[in-house]
Amino acid sequence: MIYFDNSATTKPNEEVLDTFHKVASIYYGNPSSVHSFGLQTEKLLAQARRQIASLLNVGESEIYFTSGGTESNNLAIKGVANQFRNRGKHLITTKIEHPSVENACEYLKKDGFDITYLPVDENGRIHLDDLKKAIRDDTILVSIMHVNNEIGVIQPIEEIGSLLQNYPKILFHVDVVQGIGKVPIDFHKSQIDLATISAHKFHGLKGTGALYVREGVKLTPLLHGGNQEKGLRSGTENVPGIVAMAKALRLAFEDFNQKRHEMEKIRDYLRHELIKIDQTTINTPEMHIAPHILNFSVEGFKAEVLVNTFSEKQLYVSTTSACSSKRNEPSKTLLAMGVDQKRAESSIRISLSYENTIQEAERAVKVIKSSIEKLLPVMRGSI
Amino acid sequence: MIYFDNSATTKPNEEVLDTFHKVASIYYGNPSSVHSFGLQTEKLLAQARRQIASLLNVGESEIYFTSGGTESNNLAIKGVANQFRNRGKHLITTKIEHPSVENACEYLKKDGFDITYLPVDENGRIHLDDLKKAIRDDTILVSIMHVNNEIGVIQPIEEIGSLLQNYPKILFHVDVVQGIGKVPIDFHKSQIDLATISAHKFHGLKGTGALYVREGVKLTPLLHGGNQEKGLRSGTENVPGIVAMAKALRLAFEDFNQKRHEMEKIRDYLRHELIKIDQTTINTPEMHIAPHILNFSVEGFKAEVLVNTFSEKQLYVSTTSACSSKRNEPSKTLLAMGVDQKRAESSIRISLSYENTIQEAERAVKVIKSSIEKLLPVMRGSI
Ligand SMILES: Cc1ncc(COP(=O)(O)O)c(C=O)c1O
Ligand SMILES: Cc1ncc(COP(=O)(O)O)c(C=O)c1O
Repeated sequence: MIYFDNSATTKPNEEVLDTFHKVASIYYGNPSSVHSFGLQTEKLLAQARRQIASLLNVGESEIYFTSGGTESNNLAIKGVANQFRNRGKHLITTKIEHPSVENACEYLKKDGFDITYLPVDENGRIHLDDLKKAIRDDTILVSIMHVNNEIGVIQPIEEIGSLLQNYPKILFHVDVVQGIGKVPIDFHKSQIDLATISAHKFHGLKGTGALYVREGVKLTPLLHGGNQEKGLRSGTENVPGIVAMAKALRLAFEDFNQKRHEMEKIRDYLRHELIKIDQTTINTPEMHIAPHILNFSVEGFKAEVLVNTFSEKQLYVSTTSACSSKRNEPSKTLLAMGVDQKRAESSIRISLSYENTIQEAERAVKVIKSSIEKLLPVMRGSI
Repeated sequence: MIYFDNSATTKPNEEVLDTFHKVASIYYGNPSSVHSFGLQTEKLLAQARRQIASLLNVGESEIYFTSGGTESNNLAIKGVANQFRNRGKHLITTKIEHPSVENACEYLKKDGFDITYLPVDENGRIHLDDLKKAIRDDTILVSIMHVNNEIGVIQPIEEIGSLLQNYPKILFHVDVVQGIGKVPIDFHKSQIDLATISAHKFHGLKGTGALYVREGVKLTPLLHGGNQEKGLRSGTENVPGIVAMAKALRLAFEDFNQKRHEMEKIRDYLRHELIKIDQTTINTPEMHIAPHILNFSVEGFKAEVLVNTFSEKQLYVSTTSACSSKRNEPSKTLLAMGVDQKRAESSIRISLSYENTIQEAERAVKVIKSSIEKLLPVMRGSI
């Protein structure tokens, strides 16, 4: 099979699974227990935190473990909103965020918060002018994603961070779920206050993630209880999953540049080959893009039909983000970029990982071409 | 080693770990993906839900997966509070709940909610009269735990459920984290609306849990995003962990009565032997108790000192609940039962699982006796 749906989720690395198994079967104590068996687990937890912090080039006291990207995004956004609601009730984000950012914001609306959704241009990027104009006296948070999960475009995070230095009361949250381990990002240089990561997007395990919280930034917790994670995130820590996440992140950063260039090569090969097909248009721009995502449309075809046809040949890609795909909604990122509804509805996302090869890409191109050829007469009839 | 700290967390069952590994390495797709590889994962998820529902004797549409007991308790309590705040802002709970219930309630206080903490008698049980008297026109939720995690006492859940039938607008939440698979409970018969379970307490994996939500009960979500779990709990589902939880629950229910009686036998043996030691008092009452928890105090000793001494001999027990143990707080359950501060500070919890044996209990008694004898002269000097 050819698994090209790595932005939906990745295959857990074998070494990561081994680490998980070892910790779960040997060091199964509760890190909160006072006995020596609990302390061993606590040490593993501390070590994983140190490793992740060092890979992200931040302090170990700045890493908080959560159950994934969705929880981290909710904790960041609602945590700031609840902590600073007396300072102001205005948040700024973009029209192309993951649903876990968008819907956390929409929820806050009912609680009297005001949300500005920044537009993006035809290349999927926001403009700093728009951000500057959107900032108000009561703005408390700017939440802008790093790499977009639908088309792979990278936002100007460093420039946004610089701009926000003029507004010391505004916190800056970045959803780096799709970018981490694939696109270099420096949390300090980009003046990021809060950043979300999710392990299952880099060959770690589902149900594990983290929130980077810059030293000194205060948040209201979402989950109250035994005061784990310095009170910010209660609940018995998933130590095996967390240690496995540290391993997965280390592997993602190993030979980082080589992995990145390999993915870029595959992506560019795909772009080059797919563009030759009469019916296709490439939606992912050519600049400011991540190495692993390529979005394209096939004129006259519903994306679901293609995805299903490919999957009969064991080529797995997706229509839009996994979350929206079940509801058959077209990519909101493409719509925000000004792509028309029809092209958006026929858009397909290929998303790579460092485990994919150029040979897989070659086979994928054949599957895509032959599927389109096979379906063409049927499609023509139906339109 | 003798692991008698199963209320803090349990050793994941080998079969459970195998299941996890299999699902994580083979069926790693995202259940939200539309392609056939994603659908396979979705099927596993649906199957796990059906299995868990059938073991709990509830409908499959009534099971929602979360990251554990703490999240389920927060979701139940804050979910009801936010959903029904216009109906009333009064909640009733007890003085002996797990911190994830207590602190979720305390958080709501800041939001204008009023909380009644019911007292317990010297046997650790609430009185129905007290509950009845506490109910007000603006009461929207009663949250009472099934089995207490510090002394093992069982609350009169069925009687509470019956009483609450006279108040159809009040929802009934039960934290069954410590009881499930150990003490029979019938959600329907007890008229429970919401129930919390956590897999790592029954040889499943940390970071997985569920909330039972009776058909028709509406809750406000804690995590917003891709609308997984019918919109109640967004976030990519931890399918391997969930399938592993279903397995763990099935194993816990297998030969349920035999397992229960075996634990009771061990507990009673321990009670019988420990009571013979001059310095000990048994804190766990004799009636309405779970099979796996025995709490006792050793006069003149700080519990931490004993736990550490035992752990040098690889006997692992705990002071109070794992969550509070790091803060050296004495058991709040014992204090609520009217036990004096000193005896509470010298209290130790033994908590069993179906994997423990009577031979382990015999060795444990020896370790406990010899440790007390060894420490006695030192302790006498220090007091
Ligand atoms: C950009 C982005 N943010 C957040 C998430 C949510 O992460 P998780 O699946 O761990 O909840 C995803 C993936 O689903 C994503 O692509
Ligand atoms: C009674 C009770 N409720 C809730 C919890 C919390 O569950 P979890 O550790 O999965 O967050 C625990 C254990 O920590 C518990 O004993």
